[in-house]
Amino acid sequence: MPERALISVSNKEGIVEFAKSLVQYGIEIISTGGTAKLLKENGIDIIEISDFTGFPEILDGRVKTLHPNVHAGILNVRDSKVHRETMEKMNLKNIDMVVVNLYPFEATISKENFTFDEAIENIDIGGPTMIRSAAKNHKFVTVVVDNKDFELILKELHEGGISYDTRLNLARKAFTHTAVYDSLISNYFNQICNIEFPEELTIPMRKDIDLRYGENPHQKAAFYKSPLIKEISVSTSEKLHGKELSFNNIIDINGALELIKEFEQPAAAIIKHTNPCGVGIADNIFDAYNYALECDPISAFGGIVAFNRIVNSKTAEKLSEIFLEVVIAPDFEEEAFNILTKKKNLRLFKTGNLNKYRDNEYDMKKVVGGFLLQDRDLKNFDENVGFKVVTKRKPTKEELEALKFAWIVVKHVKSNAIVYANSNQTIGIGAGQMSRVDSSKIAAIKARKSLNDTVMASDAFFPFRDSVDEAAKHGITAIIQPGGSIRDDEVIQAANEHNIAMIFTGMRHFKH
Amino acid sequence: MPERALISVSNKEGIVEFAKSLVQYGIEIISTGGTAKLLKENGIDIIEISDFTGFPEILDGRVKTLHPNVHAGILNVRDSKVHRETMEKMNLKNIDMVVVNLYPFEATISKENFTFDEAIENIDIGGPTMIRSAAKNHKFVTVVVDNKDFELILKELHEGGISYDTRLNLARKAFTHTAVYDSLISNYFNQICNIEFPEELTIPMRKDIDLRYGENPHQKAAFYKSPLIKEISVSTSEKLHGKELSFNNIIDINGALELIKEFEQPAAAIIKHTNPCGVGIADNIFDAYNYALECDPISAFGGIVAFNRIVNSKTAEKLSEIFLEVVIAPDFEEEAFNILTKKKNLRLFKTGNLNKYRDNEYDMKKVVGGFLLQDRDLKNFDENVGFKVVTKRKPTKEELEALKFAWIVVKHVKSNAIVYANSNQTIGIGAGQMSRVDSSKIAAIKARKSLNDTVMASDAFFPFRDSVDEAAKHGITAIIQPGGSIRDDEVIQAANEHNIAMIFTGMRHFKH
Repeated sequence: MPERALISVSNKEGIVEFAKSLVQYGIEIISTGGTAKLLKENGIDIIEISDFTGFPEILDGRVKTLHPNVHAGILNVRDSKVHRETMEKMNLKNIDMVVVNLYPFEATISKENFTFDEAIENIDIGGPTMIRSAAKNHKFVTVVVDNKDFELILKELHEGGISYDTRLNLARKAFTHTAVYDSLISNYFNQICNIEFPEELTIPMRKDIDLRYGENPHQKAAFYKSPLIKEISVSTSEKLHGKELSFNNIIDINGALELIKEFEQPAAAIIKHTNPCGVGIADNIFDAYNYALECDPISAFGGIVAFNRIVNSKTAEKLSEIFLEVVIAPDFEEEAFNILTKKKNLRLFKTGNLNKYRDNEYDMKKVVGGFLLQDRDLKNFDENVGFKVVTKRKPTKEELEALKFAWIVVKHVKSNAIVYANSNQTIGIGAGQMSRVDSSKIAAIKARKSLNDTVMASDAFFPFRDSVDEAAKHGITAIIQPGGSIRDDEVIQAANEHNIAMIFTGMRHFKH
Repeated sequence: MPERALISVSNKEGIVEFAKSLVQYGIEIISTGGTAKLLKENGIDIIEISDFTGFPEILDGRVKTLHPNVHAGILNVRDSKVHRETMEKMNLKNIDMVVVNLYPFEATISKENFTFDEAIENIDIGGPTMIRSAAKNHKFVTVVVDNKDFELILKELHEGGISYDTRLNLARKAFTHTAVYDSLISNYFNQICNIEFPEELTIPMRKDIDLRYGENPHQKAAFYKSPLIKEISVSTSEKLHGKELSFNNIIDINGALELIKEFEQPAAAIIKHTNPCGVGIADNIFDAYNYALECDPISAFGGIVAFNRIVNSKTAEKLSEIFLEVVIAPDFEEEAFNILTKKKNLRLFKTGNLNKYRDNEYDMKKVVGGFLLQDRDLKNFDENVGFKVVTKRKPTKEELEALKFAWIVVKHVKSNAIVYANSNQTIGIGAGQMSRVDSSKIAAIKARKSLNDTVMASDAFFPFRDSVDEAAKHGITAIIQPGGSIRDDEVIQAANEHNIAMIFTGMRHFKH
């Protein structure tokens, strides 16, 4: 049974009841500042930290618990004769339980407006030290960083004492807590110092949901959120209806959202296996969805659909006609909601109003033994290059619209990517091939409509003229691509031969 | 100019010279334990920490710097009148520089054999506290956690004092250091407690190289290693030759290595845009490479080639015939090395002997605002199901070999994935499609050889019989797939109609 507990918490939920219970088990309580005041007001007999240390609290509270009496009390090895003798000789007392929450650094930097000085003042020094001391000495000491653990502690005290397994697990939580705390501070300093890729880095995350399984049923998985996220994303969206999300759903929702965020006009995107299998834009989302669906209705089966406008009942009726996994939109009109919720399993996700706010996040790829970190691909074309016509013939106004649309879509298709489109819809999407000309061929094979008078977008330059010749065979009239191949001349010549208008953007969009 | 520095380091490189220089600037030095001893032996006048605090070092060194005299000395706000008065009244002295390295927790848990108690004893409490105190008060205090910074400090002292920008940047490094330290401790505790997906999590990483750019030239990027990595991987491999790695190279090397690790017999894999575009196995890697190359020689242009055997000169000659980005192998015979290094840009990577050791790492996918974490897909089939024949006809011995080979390859192809193969080589690879039947068609279109008497592997079950009918058209004689579709009966019937032998594995291998 613990003899003495040190309590100093910023989250005071349940602390009074907890402290009262500790007192009933004969545990002496040491406390500080606001916590001490609250406990005393509630009639709990406590020892002020300065009485315990014999040292005043100084420097506006910056130094109060950083004292050898406190840390010897926590850190001494109870089954060491030498340590016991030292403690007795120096008249030091054991602290067997440490109940501490930290200064709210995260809450401070989550505010709309905060100053650098406020952030700094909210870096706790004494708190993490006590937590880490107690966690290190978990063989003898109980450390509590999460008020949700009060119940377990009291249950075990009731059963005669706190078990080793519990102390070990609480130490685990404690070190994780200080690791997250310092990760947030470290990331904030990196940001302040404008260092994007520091020598060392830690990425903090917080579990949102345990998933039923991962990419496949034999892989266990969980979804974690970034602590400070504000950008419209899977993390900020609200599930309104339907069965639990799968690992693959989350990947696809993310892909769908990133694509749909690009459009100003009403748009619909259908995603399957991380690739769009149909994208449409129109004056209204009903038409946009129909355009999107028309591209590849077979693949759309079991897909994820995303909209950038509120879903109305007419669109909801249409959505109900096939099996879909997820519909995600800024919101759903009541009637639309009622129509869609007739499908028990269909997941409905509400993003709220889409906006252009972007968090300053890394894109990341995991490889065995390491991590590839990069800026997100948030640009569309090189401002110095713009949309540069490189052929004799300039694109018509309608071709230009179609080219711009196809260019946005192709950025979100796995490389090598080719998209055939008109100004309202994708007609053929060639994804994920090892050679560009294969993507050109596949996109054409998959097209259900004639490709006559449509346009082509390529996510990277053409290494050879073959893809242009392939496109011409199908009646494509205009092409958009980054340019930059050593055979650009040959490729431009091919376009001229076929009277194709071609635009260079100066920006590649590989996506793997 | 700092008045007083506290020095306590486990890494003693350059510390004597640094301390001597500080003394020359009139800076008083406080020190502890081994550092104090070393400095004194080198004739440097130091103040022992116990003399500075007036408190003995106790509990086997567990409590020595956790003292208000130390932390008031670090934390007091130099431009606060109240703080200054407190310091004077209590006869406390400023500590303006903190030079501290931490107990070697990481080195301890990196050892082949270490005990839990050793790990715990190597959790530093006093060190991180001083570092964090000093970093918090960087407005006035300089914190040094990295001996490499000694030079900069001395340079600035020579110029009259340490600048605010330097102190801020050193604080940034300090918080990153403690964040990484506690991340490693936290991850170790999670492992000890057998908790794979804890509520909070931090992932520590250490920069290996700044990359020229990311997936595309307009994205900045860097490659980070996991600190404790031992598994054969990009992180553990050695670059022997060639120009710097690109972001996309690293993704592809990783893909190539994970595939090649699966084979016992000599094997070669060619990767392009994260997908294999040819895989071969044989008695020797020369034949294996030729088999691999034969599958899709056009896509192989600019590819990554991986081997699981040492590269000999015959294979090197053959490799030299086309443009490749990277060759990765356990090693290169001297003559082979001389042949390949004639190509200035070709990157050669040596893995050392491949082995079955696997680190306990997450697989991870980044989405905006969060992270999907999962177990890696390290299994091949469900042991309860094995390779279960579900058709009237059983596969022949040769078909079975081909099926097992195709099954391993298809696991490493992006979903939906279809692979046609014989027992030595892939013949057609259908990657990354939104519908399975499209992958079947594409794999057939891409095949340069007849598909007669070859086998088919599918990474997930067939939702309809169409892919089986498609395969039969091309003369495929056997199929391997997980099974588990609600239309399995229909699919089995289709196979029986075509006299195709079919195997269920019970395990899906989606890869996105």
